[in-house]
Amino acid sequence: MAGAAIDFWYDFASTYSYPAAMRVADLAAARGVDVVWRPFLLGPLFAAQGWRDSPFNLYPVKGRYMWRDMERICRSEKLPLKRPEPFPQNAVLAARVATTLEGAMRARFTRAVYHAEFGEGRAIAERSEIAAVIAALGLSAEATLAHALSDANKDKLKRQSAEAQALGLPGAPCFVTEEREIFWGNDRLEQALDWAVGAKR
Amino acid sequence: MAGAAIDFWYDFASTYSYPAAMRVADLAAARGVDVVWRPFLLGPLFAAQGWRDSPFNLYPVKGRYMWRDMERICRSEKLPLKRPEPFPQNAVLAARVATTLEGAMRARFTRAVYHAEFGEGRAIAERSEIAAVIAALGLSAEATLAHALSDANKDKLKRQSAEAQALGLPGAPCFVTEEREIFWGNDRLEQALDWAVGAKR
Repeated sequence: MAGAAIDFWYDFASTYSYPAAMRVADLAAARGVDVVWRPFLLGPLFAAQGWRDSPFNLYPVKGRYMWRDMERICRSEKLPLKRPEPFPQNAVLAARVATTLEGAMRARFTRAVYHAEFGEGRAIAERSEIAAVIAALGLSAEATLAHALSDANKDKLKRQSAEAQALGLPGAPCFVTEEREIFWGNDRLEQALDWAVGAKR
Repeated sequence: MAGAAIDFWYDFASTYSYPAAMRVADLAAARGVDVVWRPFLLGPLFAAQGWRDSPFNLYPVKGRYMWRDMERICRSEKLPLKRPEPFPQNAVLAARVATTLEGAMRARFTRAVYHAEFGEGRAIAERSEIAAVIAALGLSAEATLAHALSDANKDKLKRQSAEAQALGLPGAPCFVTEEREIFWGNDRLEQALDWAVGAKR
């Protein structure tokens, strides 16, 4: 029998996706769960709800709580935290590059972008920042960006985001089991993995 | 040295406050933490953010996720779950009664209201339902409701809600330590208690 698998849906502008991206591989491996990394864009989902900015900016009380909560989480997980300016960063280019990469390289790129963005406060909306991340992974920035900006790859990311919307993802990060159980939030990662393992028993 | 204490802020219309109310006493007692039960009204806080209804109704994607999540939580905690109609229930009367009660009786009343509302789907906005809960606790419904509806008690609840707003509570339930660390959500109860204990060491 095949082992359990889980889809990890994330958006590069999402703060809570940062600790989730740093935690998911080890926790899933410890339980024998495969992780499929699914970059998508929250923008269209938020726009469908009438939001034209991050809810953490639209609702400052939630924003203040979130940043303090992120401080606690990052301290507990021994992750650096530095807020990028402006927040949120436009995450479209990073998501396009993640979409064009496969498997382990997509996971490595994703972690590297989150580290740059929320660990170092870098403006990952900038092409030069993304190019630097790609190059640090030993890939050709020029070729990778060309692939990422192809129409076929742009369409692929659009289809991914449409799939997220069709699934009813309420935000990011989300963990979705093979039975389409949705768990929303970095703090639900362990529960999602336990559910995925339990469903396979 | 005095032991740790935590403020448990809840709104009777809040779904996630239901499992929190059922869990908080035992978990706090196991860690030697005192719980102060703080009923308040989310309505004024939501209105300040431009919401005139529950965010779970305004944003149906979040609402669908929340109800499924509540099903999972209640199954795991062996709590009954039945959605009241309409949702959310007007929670002002219940909050006024909770405010007029003290100590252990406030906690007992609170759990009984949540059980009626989300365990049995009863319309706790109705005076008759609240009167039945009060009577089942061995109190005089008539006298308790008269106290609850006094101007002094109404003012007390207003001050409580203003305090919640001043603290910057982003929703309900919230757990607030003596150092004003805020933890939002039923799923943060354990973390809040651990923080409260750790701050006393």
